[in-house]
Amino acid sequence: MRVLGVDPGLTRCGVGIVEGQVGRPPTLVGVGVIRTPADMAAPKRLLRIADGLDEWLGEYRPDVVAVERVFADQNVLSVIGVAQAVGFAMVAAERRGIPVFQHTPTEVKAAITGSGRADKAQIGKMVARLLKLDEPPKPADAADAVALAICHLWRGGAAQRMEEAAAKLSAASSPRPQGARFPRAAARAGVAAASKVAS
Amino acid sequence: MRVLGVDPGLTRCGVGIVEGQVGRPPTLVGVGVIRTPADMAAPKRLLRIADGLDEWLGEYRPDVVAVERVFADQNVLSVIGVAQAVGFAMVAAERRGIPVFQHTPTEVKAAITGSGRADKAQIGKMVARLLKLDEPPKPADAADAVALAICHLWRGGAAQRMEEAAAKLSAASSPRPQGARFPRAAARAGVAAASKVAS
Repeated sequence: MRVLGVDPGLTRCGVGIVEGQVGRPPTLVGVGVIRTPADMAAPKRLLRIADGLDEWLGEYRPDVVAVERVFADQNVLSVIGVAQAVGFAMVAAERRGIPVFQHTPTEVKAAITGSGRADKAQIGKMVARLLKLDEPPKPADAADAVALAICHLWRGGAAQRMEEAAAKLSAASSPRPQGARFPRAAARAGVAAASKVAS
Repeated sequence: MRVLGVDPGLTRCGVGIVEGQVGRPPTLVGVGVIRTPADMAAPKRLLRIADGLDEWLGEYRPDVVAVERVFADQNVLSVIGVAQAVGFAMVAAERRGIPVFQHTPTEVKAAITGSGRADKAQIGKMVARLLKLDEPPKPADAADAVALAICHLWRGGAAQRMEEAAAKLSAASSPRPQGARFPRAAARAGVAAASKVAS
């Protein structure tokens, strides 16, 4: 399975592509950062992020896209740009029929380092060790995107199977559409559960 | 001048197109709402908003897009969806080379009703009166989008000329790029000044 991880942001949007499966060491396929200057007009910056993400999808054709989940307790100004980058990643993936998953920063840290409180340096070190690299991908946003992709490789499959089982139970017991299992407020905010989002 | 106003949101994204110029009564060209069900998967909802906005641009070919400015003091969860819709409007406009302006809700209310504290009903009534409609466009999101477009017709020209004059002064006195005049934090968050954003 090939996973494209996205660490969303406007100034630096990290992108990392990893291949592997549960129980085997992952392989790094590609890693980079889409940058936009802070003094560029907003529409141009946003278009550059949207097009950039689509180019990564087109070039590497991942099976899955994993995006950092936007958090409700972050600083509002920083949330705006992050939410927009998440939106572009989701739309680009949906257009190509690629399923999108979301994972929280804590889930990523815990999956990679064993601790949900690991700092950026620890994440970078573990990413380098897991992928047998001489040093962590740079900048930190690129390493974070790779960590997110590895986290999905390891967690995503299990989470997906649980979701699918839950969906079957839910479908058997009620005629509600699948999406209705997610909390309404979360769905309204464009925040999907950390689970497969039907494409 | 033809202005497309966007009242951004995921559940209901209002769209209104108005034609006119300063000193003349505006004319309503089109109005509507792009809706997405709250129980639909996030990537599908976002794609529907992105495609919907692009279709309105393609069908009505406005000279300018006016979008509600995302506010830093709103509830974070609601900001996420609003910011994403703003992002799609900006990207769709930028792709077509259409300039994007932003106005705050207070500016819109003040431009339409004379009071920055007007409620939705007052906005709707004034929109109907200004456009000689029997009743306000419904739902309120559609009326708000029309109000935003009218606000831009009346305010935008003046604001744009001031911005351009300021840009010339700034360019004459320093080599900073035009965008650098905006506060960095705002630019970083994808929030442009309420002024022409070079396309």
